[in-house]
Amino acid sequence: MNSNLITGQDESTVTVDLGDRSYPIHVGTEATGRFAAALDHTLGDLTHALVIHDAAVDNWAGDLAREIRNVANRVDIVSVASGEPSKSIKQFESLLDWMLQCGADRRSVVIAVGGGVIGDLAGFVAASFARGVRFVQVPTTLLAMVDSSVGGKTGINLTGAKNMVGAFWQPHLVWVDTSAMKTLPHRSYISGLAEVIKYGVIDDASFFADLESNAQALVDREPNVLRHAIEQSCLSKARVVGEDERETSGRRAILNYGHTFAHAIEATAGYGALLHGEAVAIGMQMAASLAIQLGLCEPSLLERQTKLLSQCQLPITFPDADVEAMLPVMMRDKKVAHGKLRFILPTKIGSVELVGDVDPAHVRTAIKAHV
Amino acid sequence: MNSNLITGQDESTVTVDLGDRSYPIHVGTEATGRFAAALDHTLGDLTHALVIHDAAVDNWAGDLAREIRNVANRVDIVSVASGEPSKSIKQFESLLDWMLQCGADRRSVVIAVGGGVIGDLAGFVAASFARGVRFVQVPTTLLAMVDSSVGGKTGINLTGAKNMVGAFWQPHLVWVDTSAMKTLPHRSYISGLAEVIKYGVIDDASFFADLESNAQALVDREPNVLRHAIEQSCLSKARVVGEDERETSGRRAILNYGHTFAHAIEATAGYGALLHGEAVAIGMQMAASLAIQLGLCEPSLLERQTKLLSQCQLPITFPDADVEAMLPVMMRDKKVAHGKLRFILPTKIGSVELVGDVDPAHVRTAIKAHV
Repeated sequence: MNSNLITGQDESTVTVDLGDRSYPIHVGTEATGRFAAALDHTLGDLTHALVIHDAAVDNWAGDLAREIRNVANRVDIVSVASGEPSKSIKQFESLLDWMLQCGADRRSVVIAVGGGVIGDLAGFVAASFARGVRFVQVPTTLLAMVDSSVGGKTGINLTGAKNMVGAFWQPHLVWVDTSAMKTLPHRSYISGLAEVIKYGVIDDASFFADLESNAQALVDREPNVLRHAIEQSCLSKARVVGEDERETSGRRAILNYGHTFAHAIEATAGYGALLHGEAVAIGMQMAASLAIQLGLCEPSLLERQTKLLSQCQLPITFPDADVEAMLPVMMRDKKVAHGKLRFILPTKIGSVELVGDVDPAHVRTAIKAHV
Repeated sequence: MNSNLITGQDESTVTVDLGDRSYPIHVGTEATGRFAAALDHTLGDLTHALVIHDAAVDNWAGDLAREIRNVANRVDIVSVASGEPSKSIKQFESLLDWMLQCGADRRSVVIAVGGGVIGDLAGFVAASFARGVRFVQVPTTLLAMVDSSVGGKTGINLTGAKNMVGAFWQPHLVWVDTSAMKTLPHRSYISGLAEVIKYGVIDDASFFADLESNAQALVDREPNVLRHAIEQSCLSKARVVGEDERETSGRRAILNYGHTFAHAIEATAGYGALLHGEAVAIGMQMAASLAIQLGLCEPSLLERQTKLLSQCQLPITFPDADVEAMLPVMMRDKKVAHGKLRFILPTKIGSVELVGDVDPAHVRTAIKAHV
């Protein structure tokens, strides 16, 4: 599943196989100078590129746009305000109007440069303009690199309902340059580690053990450890997405380990009080406690998870949790089937299963174990 | 390709085969009382149906909603103003908010009852809510029955750009009840005949000959002739869509015969001055003239087409055409590849081809032949 894409020893490519087509996730370091060549190689036919980027990475996006000018006939670039409020219908409309004014057509390519907000937003714009144009992800946060930029989920928010509107729209190329990590704020970086650890719990026990052995190096952003962690995370995600692109078989749901709790924490604490990865870390703790209550796994699983999350400086409890407010939010979750609570719960490190119709009393107890 | 779906002698089913799944187009008369049974049979698992309908068919939609209550746990219904302005981002957002308030989830089903505007709008809403929920089309205009409700193109407009935002989102069931024709205004009905005649020209010479023999009966809405015309039109469309669902191979483009001219006529005459089918009739005339100029077909093709359109009371010229305003619009058409004009042109009745890089001077002449 690994092969070198363009050049360089410190680069590798993970392939997401969708059956009718596949796309590469390129993982490299200091790779920005090679982006245009990879774009040209992977997409061909580059008449018009539209770069949509987070205002926080103006310089990075400007450099990329200059590079793309070497291979595309026309390049347009637009900056979007950082943060969740940009995932609105209003911003969606404004970007579509911008594309029309730029003369975009169905051969155009949308390139998202930023974190999850920009990827989700620009992805839905790409999915919808002219009923869909090609899309490239250049994630600049750890969370986006290991999670949101891979797998084709795009979307925006309705009032009170995160990601309620969107499309499954797979990118043609994901370009991960770990050097973007250099300028990423500490808290944002640490938050991304929660999803990395998640892959160990749900899919890969030996990767989990690797992370245990290298926790401090990971926190210190040691380049080789970091690149290995991103690569393994993308491999796990690519495998799951390839098996269940549109969440129809249920397989893809394993990626939501910790997330039903996390979404409820985020919604009741007010979006922004916690970073997404922080909420996921706490949610994973609650899910592990729920699994132990239901007799699905040994208490040692929670102990190892707690230790690794702590070593990675992630939160393991949420003292402000409002249990009674969280439950109704969980019932509204997109993953809920007909009002019955379902969870992805671990059976051992590296293995999870979907558990349906869970008693709310058990859910309450699991939440209370981590407040 | 034909088989009886539920009951009745005057009913037939056309199947759209998409490779990974297929869906039925049911064509019947006075079939409304059987809709809920068909819905239940085809979709199963009907927890929540959301009926989005044109304000012009309040009674019809209300009857359907009452029927659906027999098979679905919950039914919500909303009315949308008639006319093209409803295909806006604002209306899109308002319907998404309404679905959220109704407690819709990914198992919900959106049912569009109305003409092309409602089908396009509700279809894009269905494609986008929770990244896509199931969708059913109940077309109530002839145009929607033979064209827009079949094939999965959904969309809304940007200012100055029709259908510029949308998704390919195939329905699970299309329910055509010709008795909806009884209350359809004459001009709207006649307009729909343009697309019926189109299928004869692009795909089926013997169907074209049938139409020539039955033109007056068609204008008079004689039930058997009408049902046959709808059935054959859906068969042609289903075949083309099955071969090229997402307009990737180019095959689907044959459905656009006359449409590049028609869109330019509609845009420059102001949307609403002509009904879509009227513009298509004139556009087909211009396309036939262009084909004759380029030596692709005999003048007799235009003669037969002119006669049939006239017998069906459709316009064959557009004296108000603004040639110089139309050309730039044609250059902006979604089907344009890199600024080169392409047209679907007939070679004989029942057969068309895609002709690329057409000289604008020839296009001008073709337009002027029908002003």
